[in-house]
Amino acid sequence: MNKVIETILNHRSVRKFTNEQLTEEQIHTIVACAQAASTSSFVQAYSIIGVTDQEIKKQLVEISGGQAYVEENGHFFIFCADLYRHELIGKMENRNVIPTIESTEKFMVALIDAALAAQNAAIAAESMGLGICYIGGIRNYLEEVSKLLKIPKRVIPLFGMSVGYPAKETAKKPRLPLEHIYHTNEYERDIKVSESQLQEYNQTISVYYKERTNGKRSDTWTGQIANMLEKSTRTYMKEYVEKQKMNLR
Amino acid sequence: MNKVIETILNHRSVRKFTNEQLTEEQIHTIVACAQAASTSSFVQAYSIIGVTDQEIKKQLVEISGGQAYVEENGHFFIFCADLYRHELIGKMENRNVIPTIESTEKFMVALIDAALAAQNAAIAAESMGLGICYIGGIRNYLEEVSKLLKIPKRVIPLFGMSVGYPAKETAKKPRLPLEHIYHTNEYERDIKVSESQLQEYNQTISVYYKERTNGKRSDTWTGQIANMLEKSTRTYMKEYVEKQKMNLR
Repeated sequence: MNKVIETILNHRSVRKFTNEQLTEEQIHTIVACAQAASTSSFVQAYSIIGVTDQEIKKQLVEISGGQAYVEENGHFFIFCADLYRHELIGKMENRNVIPTIESTEKFMVALIDAALAAQNAAIAAESMGLGICYIGGIRNYLEEVSKLLKIPKRVIPLFGMSVGYPAKETAKKPRLPLEHIYHTNEYERDIKVSESQLQEYNQTISVYYKERTNGKRSDTWTGQIANMLEKSTRTYMKEYVEKQKMNLR
Repeated sequence: MNKVIETILNHRSVRKFTNEQLTEEQIHTIVACAQAASTSSFVQAYSIIGVTDQEIKKQLVEISGGQAYVEENGHFFIFCADLYRHELIGKMENRNVIPTIESTEKFMVALIDAALAAQNAAIAAESMGLGICYIGGIRNYLEEVSKLLKIPKRVIPLFGMSVGYPAKETAKKPRLPLEHIYHTNEYERDIKVSESQLQEYNQTISVYYKERTNGKRSDTWTGQIANMLEKSTRTYMKEYVEKQKMNLR
């Protein structure tokens, strides 16, 4: 196993960091790594916002549901799907790009571009001995996030990323059985096969929680996920995205 | 610079591969790395399909617009946003998860989850001396792709990834200036600043193409992107996604 694969397989979300701040050089290396990711047709449809202002960070903690590590970390990034510069490009080149950049296809492209860049950033950070945690919680109130960060139309903040030196060891969470995620030549549609894989995984997850909590928790994965999905959250999202002039047609 | 960052920064898309096939072990390592990526609230909303059947591969070449390296590679992966298993989980646990999994929020989650996994796969492959190329071209005709791979509702094939041993060196494409992608505390909305960064980048890209083509090409980035965005493609996407019962509310 090489160093890269070791770094990737060793990933765990870190939720407690020391006070040590990232250097400018570290931040630049992480962003350069993000930019090195593939981008659909060279479109580079994302932006990254580094948040250093304590007042903004405090508000982001509130927005994200009180997660202290949104404020207390070595650096905080926000990754955005971004087609704003493409509107500008249309103006610069005197072409009508609006129907395209308002399409569901380009909304998907921008999301994917931003996520590819973010994962490069995550791996780069982890290779430096830093820990990371994705913060989907910023999507709780994107109107507020947009005001705070002066986000223009055609830009959608997707998630934050807390980065810093880990102050607390966390455990690696077991993933779904490989054969449940990975299919060959056609999608596995036999529900019996899927169910038995999920039951097997439920055992694994149950043991994982029992060991971590001295027997206090023994959730299954399907139980946990069903609990979560029963309650709809962020139900304003479609409206927000459309107000940002994306995903319209 | 450590090995991981070196691998990440050295990325370039590879479009010509030797005939050497990936071993089962390599494929499993790549998928395990994909699975190690972060996933929103542990939801694991993606699947990966490995395509080895030559007949299916040939049809994917057609669908993607005749790119030979969709067929000629060491292995071909397709990454899918996947909320199908979550519908099954709802049934297993007797909970109504449908409104949630049909939301724009969860559509975004599934896209981001799949992309994070894919980028881990890409970096893992590159660390083994393999080259990769993302194939957005499969989105040209997702109805056909879905038929070929027996994709159920609530699953969307997002992109392919050709992986294999590089048969031809390719050049690294320069990215947007870091300060154009990376903002601090607030989004840079001064159009003059953005335009001058884009003009600077146009110079870089022009020189890049001139050098690569012995002066035959000298496109600017904004020119190239405006050309592309002027023509709307994959205009069926919104309808397809909704037919797959995602992004509905």
